[in-house]
Amino acid sequence: MIKVGIVGGTGYTGVELLRLLAQHPEVEVEAITSRSEAGVRVCDMYPNLRGHYDDLAFSEPDGDRLGACDAVFFATPHGVAHALAGELLERGTRVIDLSADFRLRDAEEWAEWYGQPHGAPALLGEAVYGLPEVNREAIRQARLIAVPGCYPTAVQLGLLPLLEAGLIDAGHVIADCKSGVTGAGRGAKVPSLLAEASESFKAYGAAGHRHLPEIRQGLTDAAGVPVGLTFVPHLTPMIRGIHATLYGRLVGEPGDLQTLFEQRFADEPFVDVMPAGSHPETRSVKGANLCRIAVHRPGNGDTVVVLAVIDNLVKGASGQAIQNLNLMFGFAENAGLTAPALMP
Amino acid sequence: MIKVGIVGGTGYTGVELLRLLAQHPEVEVEAITSRSEAGVRVCDMYPNLRGHYDDLAFSEPDGDRLGACDAVFFATPHGVAHALAGELLERGTRVIDLSADFRLRDAEEWAEWYGQPHGAPALLGEAVYGLPEVNREAIRQARLIAVPGCYPTAVQLGLLPLLEAGLIDAGHVIADCKSGVTGAGRGAKVPSLLAEASESFKAYGAAGHRHLPEIRQGLTDAAGVPVGLTFVPHLTPMIRGIHATLYGRLVGEPGDLQTLFEQRFADEPFVDVMPAGSHPETRSVKGANLCRIAVHRPGNGDTVVVLAVIDNLVKGASGQAIQNLNLMFGFAENAGLTAPALMP
Amino acid sequence: MIKVGIVGGTGYTGVELLRLLAQHPEVEVEAITSRSEAGVRVCDMYPNLRGHYDDLAFSEPDGDRLGACDAVFFATPHGVAHALAGELLERGTRVIDLSADFRLRDAEEWAEWYGQPHGAPALLGEAVYGLPEVNREAIRQARLIAVPGCYPTAVQLGLLPLLEAGLIDAGHVIADCKSGVTGAGRGAKVPSLLAEASESFKAYGAAGHRHLPEIRQGLTDAAGVPVGLTFVPHLTPMIRGIHATLYGRLVGEPGDLQTLFEQRFADEPFVDVMPAGSHPETRSVKGANLCRIAVHRPGNGDTVVVLAVIDNLVKGASGQAIQNLNLMFGFAENAGLTAPALMP
Amino acid sequence: MIKVGIVGGTGYTGVELLRLLAQHPEVEVEAITSRSEAGVRVCDMYPNLRGHYDDLAFSEPDGDRLGACDAVFFATPHGVAHALAGELLERGTRVIDLSADFRLRDAEEWAEWYGQPHGAPALLGEAVYGLPEVNREAIRQARLIAVPGCYPTAVQLGLLPLLEAGLIDAGHVIADCKSGVTGAGRGAKVPSLLAEASESFKAYGAAGHRHLPEIRQGLTDAAGVPVGLTFVPHLTPMIRGIHATLYGRLVGEPGDLQTLFEQRFADEPFVDVMPAGSHPETRSVKGANLCRIAVHRPGNGDTVVVLAVIDNLVKGASGQAIQNLNLMFGFAENAGLTAPALMP
Repeated sequence: MIKVGIVGGTGYTGVELLRLLAQHPEVEVEAITSRSEAGVRVCDMYPNLRGHYDDLAFSEPDGDRLGACDAVFFATPHGVAHALAGELLERGTRVIDLSADFRLRDAEEWAEWYGQPHGAPALLGEAVYGLPEVNREAIRQARLIAVPGCYPTAVQLGLLPLLEAGLIDAGHVIADCKSGVTGAGRGAKVPSLLAEASESFKAYGAAGHRHLPEIRQGLTDAAGVPVGLTFVPHLTPMIRGIHATLYGRLVGEPGDLQTLFEQRFADEPFVDVMPAGSHPETRSVKGANLCRIAVHRPGNGDTVVVLAVIDNLVKGASGQAIQNLNLMFGFAENAGLTAPALMP
Repeated sequence: MIKVGIVGGTGYTGVELLRLLAQHPEVEVEAITSRSEAGVRVCDMYPNLRGHYDDLAFSEPDGDRLGACDAVFFATPHGVAHALAGELLERGTRVIDLSADFRLRDAEEWAEWYGQPHGAPALLGEAVYGLPEVNREAIRQARLIAVPGCYPTAVQLGLLPLLEAGLIDAGHVIADCKSGVTGAGRGAKVPSLLAEASESFKAYGAAGHRHLPEIRQGLTDAAGVPVGLTFVPHLTPMIRGIHATLYGRLVGEPGDLQTLFEQRFADEPFVDVMPAGSHPETRSVKGANLCRIAVHRPGNGDTVVVLAVIDNLVKGASGQAIQNLNLMFGFAENAGLTAPALMP
Repeated sequence: MIKVGIVGGTGYTGVELLRLLAQHPEVEVEAITSRSEAGVRVCDMYPNLRGHYDDLAFSEPDGDRLGACDAVFFATPHGVAHALAGELLERGTRVIDLSADFRLRDAEEWAEWYGQPHGAPALLGEAVYGLPEVNREAIRQARLIAVPGCYPTAVQLGLLPLLEAGLIDAGHVIADCKSGVTGAGRGAKVPSLLAEASESFKAYGAAGHRHLPEIRQGLTDAAGVPVGLTFVPHLTPMIRGIHATLYGRLVGEPGDLQTLFEQRFADEPFVDVMPAGSHPETRSVKGANLCRIAVHRPGNGDTVVVLAVIDNLVKGASGQAIQNLNLMFGFAENAGLTAPALMP
Repeated sequence: MIKVGIVGGTGYTGVELLRLLAQHPEVEVEAITSRSEAGVRVCDMYPNLRGHYDDLAFSEPDGDRLGACDAVFFATPHGVAHALAGELLERGTRVIDLSADFRLRDAEEWAEWYGQPHGAPALLGEAVYGLPEVNREAIRQARLIAVPGCYPTAVQLGLLPLLEAGLIDAGHVIADCKSGVTGAGRGAKVPSLLAEASESFKAYGAAGHRHLPEIRQGLTDAAGVPVGLTFVPHLTPMIRGIHATLYGRLVGEPGDLQTLFEQRFADEPFVDVMPAGSHPETRSVKGANLCRIAVHRPGNGDTVVVLAVIDNLVKGASGQAIQNLNLMFGFAENAGLTAPALMP
């Protein structure tokens, strides 16, 4: 049994960590911090947790208390982990950061997209990008994990087999992605109101989204050459779920794509390659730490289409964070992550 | 580890049994039957179960195979359990029926509401109404359980404290209930289409609904006098959840209603009396075997208002069925039922 | 052709006035005010209006400009009409107030529910409650209209026939009401987010809601005796629509209730009494200025159940406001209000 | 005032014709046919039409009665218009077919995609593809109109400017399209249930969809060279609306794309090119006969992204059919089509 802390637990990834950790056999939540809600019991804010964390209340961030934890999750806006991670690492606490703070290896690129200087460039060298399907061994040894973003998880898992095998034109990849509204967080903004966002569908950020450089970095690693990516995110009227529709142009004859995907993910506990001809539904992963993928080649032409779905709050955030924790502490990789998706 | 079978597993209560039993430490699913889908793997029909029941396929109902199980759930339309329960009981298999077949003690009343003769009146004597909050000890000894309906669960739990204590006019109780669309089952009917049922709200069955006599029977037991009930169900555009708004007229000064409710359910693991002034949300129980209740007395007048929420597929069906199983087999009452609700 | 102004046009009732007035043959929108959005074109905020009001921008409230209008709508939070109505009336401009400012005849009761003194008690004497089904003749002569609230419209129309005829116990009436989320306005509040309000159902304000005294006032007028009302509003996951389920206890034999309702509303252009046995759906009035009603007497007992649906933004607000305008200016009562509801 | 008939009026495009025609100043609906619902009043099936077509009932198809109409709409499954159009044309009745029967010019290609022989190849020569933005003059003279499909309308309008100007690689165009569930019609199918289709997102028909050859035909006409199209439709959990996200690779320097689009559609009453940088929402056209378009060039690279939204039942079906009717009969092109979209 290890002790963990959660910094910034009032948002959706925070409550999702609590929901999943309630079923984890090896983890106890020692502290959850929130300046704005300090003193409020988590189950008063999230009534689904009544009966699970009845004695746990949000507290002011406290270095001693967090430093006494074996690991601390950051479920915070960008910039916070920059400020606090170093101190925790010095105390011997491992850090699993769900924010974007350590996802980009290049501090200048980070500064450009986030509009402020990188706050902890000295830590970038040891930060491990927490996509187990790529970095499992490094994660096991890591002290500092940058949990991938939601879109980046779906897009990378869908495109890795093709780019690693050099089967598509790396210079012109298209990722048309659709997200439920929890992707926008729990902030009170007019466009996220039910009256505004339901019964409608729209793109956003077509000119450039912060997940673009993160995806590009990961895809470039996989391809071994620079990847040119057009990434258009959309908002779809549902709570959870991301659907990535990925398009690449085949260069030469690719062989059997279904087999390629099945082999690439044969040993992955949380990637499910669907049978040929499938169209995965986001609801099939609702609440579960899974990416389901299908690969199509319409009309046997030179365009390959990959369909990848995740729950943005689970495999796209909190579930993947716990998967990383399990690897770091030598637990079963699926500890706390065994429940089937909620369907219907 | 016991072996269970499921008869009629293609509907929503069937797949929900599988979802919950996947997390049950003491139960193995031996067989799941469906005439129409025999041969189809359950995970091909319900992709959320991929990775959980990969070898389980629907099969033709087979008395020998079901009779070899320790317990069999019926997740069937009415009439089926009538036909099969007797044989299974003779073989020593316990029967947990999620349909309406054994809910009414009076075979003639059953015949009147269901438009056909009761098919197994001889079994009515030993059938136990599976509401643990009322019949826990009888359930422990039972061979045949009639799992309560979804509306009846919410309405009875909400009204029991008041009627048992004789605090309201039993002759004039009102239950205004709202259900998500899974309450109508998985049948392909035009009114259940997303294009018809979303962005709309309506009542149905105002002239009389089959759950009325079941609720009335349970409330009358609690009150000790005949209960006059007006029950109006409504359809609300969501997948899961029932919200019962219950109105009674106080007879005399009732004392502290909050305390009354808290005491009545103090030892109940799956009834959560919310703090005074609360308004429980259905999402706070989504996927969980819980009934959350709040009691109000507007303007300190003579009308008491009770708000009770459940997930119709869990505490209103499959979760409650497993709770009964746990009691019957001496397992922890919450075995397989510990996960928090999925929120958001 | 008359000229109208709209004060406070950024909310949902403001845009709904614009949507409906775009089809009105006798009205031109001269000005629409908003301090916070002054200078913004309405079609930049509400793209559905592109092509309809391309030259109309929000402006600072300006007494001269508004006073040059024949009529001014207030689509404002409470208190604003108190401050401005008097001056406009002096200039000869008629005022149609969609807020709560002039709905209660008793300034002290108003102050109690709204937590501030009534700002224009001198105008209460001439304010006409704009429910045409009750006050049509007074509306024709009025200079100042208090447009009824959304819940009050549905509840009063559903109960008027019974209370006017003295058929139910006026001391114990129950209104169980369900509203879509636009009823909560366009304010950015966490509970109104799609991620919070969809896939869920809840009651709110069970202890007392500001529409209670307004409804009670109207029902008491109809009954001729004080009406005791229990009013419980609920939030249902949809954009538009109110469904009122109304319960009354019959005193004596009521005769044919269907006929009673049909006769009461025989000449009403915007009340539709559905055939006996009907269950009106809110979507059947989506976007339309209509109240559809059905009356039931379950089991031929002593409880009568009325089902009434409106679109909260149309018959519950902006449509009704225009219906009042039509009466005040001698236009056809349905001018601008002839479009069928949008279904599906 | 002309008389029109509607064949097959029980589906969503049928009721939408009635909803729109109720506001048309020049059209009277003389007959609406349905074998299955003959004798049923349309307002009993579609209560939103109560008060609008109270005397109109579905009738058996009758050549004399339909032939006495000036124009007949077909809102039928494919094959029906093949069988009936010829006879009506001989009687001098103009035919506006909302089905796919006359959309493809090549009868063999039609037969291949629809799995049955083309039933009226002799009429193909005079059938006019009813996209006014391309064929306005031909439509004015036409006796037989093939109303474009919903996806084809959005995709063609979004790509026409680029292909007509030869700015993108015609061999590799991608159309990633998202539709609300009314696109699947009113048939009672399990995947269209609210419990199955809401809170989820999925692709379908990735291997080939019947709208593909129709789109390809239109785009090829525009480009003057064969167009290679990858078309992936998706189902999004909402009632109405299509969002097309279109990707093309620029060949050479394109000049100002915003100006290109604005000029192409400068005189089009029902195409709205949004300001640069916009992301049109489907709700901004809900219920309205409009296509709103935005064009983006992310990172100033060689990929152009076009966003196009329509209401699939209006500009994607019934509204466009009426626009064609207006052109054919010399009415104002926007007669009956002037109402703003319903938002929120």
